[in-house]
Amino acid sequence: MDLLQKILQGDLRATARLMTMIENGAPESIPILKSLYRHTGKAYVIGVTGPPGSGKSTLTDGITEELRLRGKTVGIVAVDPTSPFTGGAILADRIRMQRHSLDSGVFIRSMATRGHLGGLAGATNAVVDVLDAAGKDYILIETVGVGQDEIEVVRSAHTSIVVAIPGMGDDIQAIKAGVMEIGDLFVVNKADRDGADKTAMEIEMTLHLGKATDGWRPRVLKTVAVKGEGVAQLTQAILEHQAFLHQTDGRRQKGKDRIYWVFYELLRERLTTRLIEKVASNGTLDAFIERIAARETDPYSAVDEVLMKAGL
Amino acid sequence: MDLLQKILQGDLRATARLMTMIENGAPESIPILKSLYRHTGKAYVIGVTGPPGSGKSTLTDGITEELRLRGKTVGIVAVDPTSPFTGGAILADRIRMQRHSLDSGVFIRSMATRGHLGGLAGATNAVVDVLDAAGKDYILIETVGVGQDEIEVVRSAHTSIVVAIPGMGDDIQAIKAGVMEIGDLFVVNKADRDGADKTAMEIEMTLHLGKATDGWRPRVLKTVAVKGEGVAQLTQAILEHQAFLHQTDGRRQKGKDRIYWVFYELLRERLTTRLIEKVASNGTLDAFIERIAARETDPYSAVDEVLMKAGL
Repeated sequence: MDLLQKILQGDLRATARLMTMIENGAPESIPILKSLYRHTGKAYVIGVTGPPGSGKSTLTDGITEELRLRGKTVGIVAVDPTSPFTGGAILADRIRMQRHSLDSGVFIRSMATRGHLGGLAGATNAVVDVLDAAGKDYILIETVGVGQDEIEVVRSAHTSIVVAIPGMGDDIQAIKAGVMEIGDLFVVNKADRDGADKTAMEIEMTLHLGKATDGWRPRVLKTVAVKGEGVAQLTQAILEHQAFLHQTDGRRQKGKDRIYWVFYELLRERLTTRLIEKVASNGTLDAFIERIAARETDPYSAVDEVLMKAGL
Repeated sequence: MDLLQKILQGDLRATARLMTMIENGAPESIPILKSLYRHTGKAYVIGVTGPPGSGKSTLTDGITEELRLRGKTVGIVAVDPTSPFTGGAILADRIRMQRHSLDSGVFIRSMATRGHLGGLAGATNAVVDVLDAAGKDYILIETVGVGQDEIEVVRSAHTSIVVAIPGMGDDIQAIKAGVMEIGDLFVVNKADRDGADKTAMEIEMTLHLGKATDGWRPRVLKTVAVKGEGVAQLTQAILEHQAFLHQTDGRRQKGKDRIYWVFYELLRERLTTRLIEKVASNGTLDAFIERIAARETDPYSAVDEVLMKAGL
C-alpha cells in the first residue's frame, strides 16, 4: 500500500513521514500532495496567535481536550516552537507530545523554519492539508503573532483566535498592527493577573472602532488556561463561530480566501526560484550583483532588465 | 530643487516624504530610488533583534548616544513598533522621537507592516537606502526577532546584534532557530536580573558549537540599557567588528550579500504581482480558485499550468 493510501486511512507513521518530506522540501512530496488534495476541505481549521509567553500552547491543549470530550479528532501544527537559547520550548513540546501520545485522536507536529527562507507558509499549508486528508476533524495552528507569514497562516483559518495577557507592559504586547483585524475571538489569558479587565475592555474598545465585514461580531473572553478556567467557554465560542460560518456561507468564502493565498504563495515561490535559476545558470546573476555593488545600476533597474528579458 | 537633491543635502522633510511614499507603495518612489541608489553604500548598517520586552529600543538609543558622542550621524529604522492593544509602543516611540528631536544628527523612522503583504523587507531596504544617501554615518535597524523578513533584515546588516534577557522563562525566549547563526554580537540585556550569567554562558556554549565562517568570533556582552551600563562597551565592540570587516574585505562581501537579498526580494515581489495581474486580467485567476475549491485540481497543478502558459 502506498504512502497516500496509508495517510488517508489515518496511519500515523505515514502521515509523519510525508510531513518530514514537506519540511525538508523534498520534491517527491509534490506528486503526493497533488493526489492528496482532493481529499481535503473537510477539516475545520482554527488559528491561535499571540505574543511569546501568552500561553498559546496551554490554551491549544485545553481546546484540544474539550474537542476530544466531544468525540472529535484533532491535529495540532505548532509553528516555530524552538528556542535556540534554552531549548525550553522544545522540551515543553516533547512533554506535550507525551501527554497526548496514548491518544491516537490527536496528532501534533512542530514546524521550525530553519533553512526554509520564504517557505514556512507553504510548508504549513501542506501540513494542514495532510492532517485534513488524514481525517482530523479539527486542525489547530498555533503561532507567535509576529511576522507576516504567521499572520497569514492564522488569517487563513476558519476561526482566528488572538491571545493577549494583562499586566505585562507595553513592549510585550507589541503585536503587529493587523492582528486586531484578523481575530474572530480574542482571549485575555492569565486573567487571574491584575489588569485583565482593563485589557479586555481595551480590546473591546478597539473592536468597536472596526467594522464587522462578515456579520460576525468578534468576542473577547477571559481564560486561565493553566487552571482550565474559561476554556470550555472558549471552545463553545469556537463552535458557535463555526455554526455561524456554516449558516452564512462564510465557510465556503473563507475556504476560497485560503485557496487564493495558498495559490499566491506557491506561485511566488516557484516563480522566483525558477527565474533566479535561469538568471544564475547563464552567469548573469553574478554580473548583476557586481554591477549593483559598483553602483553602475540599481536593484530596481536590474529587476526591470531581468523581467524584460524573460518577456514578462 | 527636486526631492532627490533635497534628500542628498540632508533635508529632513524631504527624507520623511520619500519614506512615506515608500511605505504607501507609491510608484513615483521607484524612479527616485533608482537615481538615489548611486549615492548609497557609504553608511554602516547595524541590525538589532530580540524578543519583545528585551529592551531593544533602549539599547538602540544607548548605541545612538555613544555614536553621537563620537560625532557620527545616525539613522534609526524601527520595524513594527505599533501595539494594537495598548498603543504603548507608539507612545514610547513618540517620546523617543521627542528626545532626539533637537538633534538633527539623528533621524528615526518607524515602519509598520499593515497592508503591505510581503513588502516589509522591500520597504525597509528602501528606507535604509534613503538614510544612506541622506548621509547618515550609521543606520540602526531595530526589529522583533521573529518572522523571516525581520531575520533577513538583520542578517543583511554589517553588524548583527541579537538581544536576550535572563530569567524570563522558556517561552519568552523562543526566538527563531537561525537567530543564533546571524549574531556577530550577543547582548544579555537587563543583566542586573537573576540568571544573567547563566544566560550569557548558555549563549557562549551554543556559539562554541557553531563555526565562525568569516573569522570573526561572536562575542557575548552584558548590559543594563536603562542605566546605560555596558552600552559604551557594546558600542566599542561594534566599532571593532566594523574595523575587522574593513581589514578582511568582509564589508564588501556583506554588501554583496545584502544586494543579492534585496535583488531577490524585489524580483519576487515584482514577478508575482505581474503574473497575478496577468492571470487575473483575463479572468483565469477566479477560474483557478473555483476549480481548486471544487477539488477539480490542486494548487500545485494550477501553478504548473500558470507557469507553463507564461512560458517559464
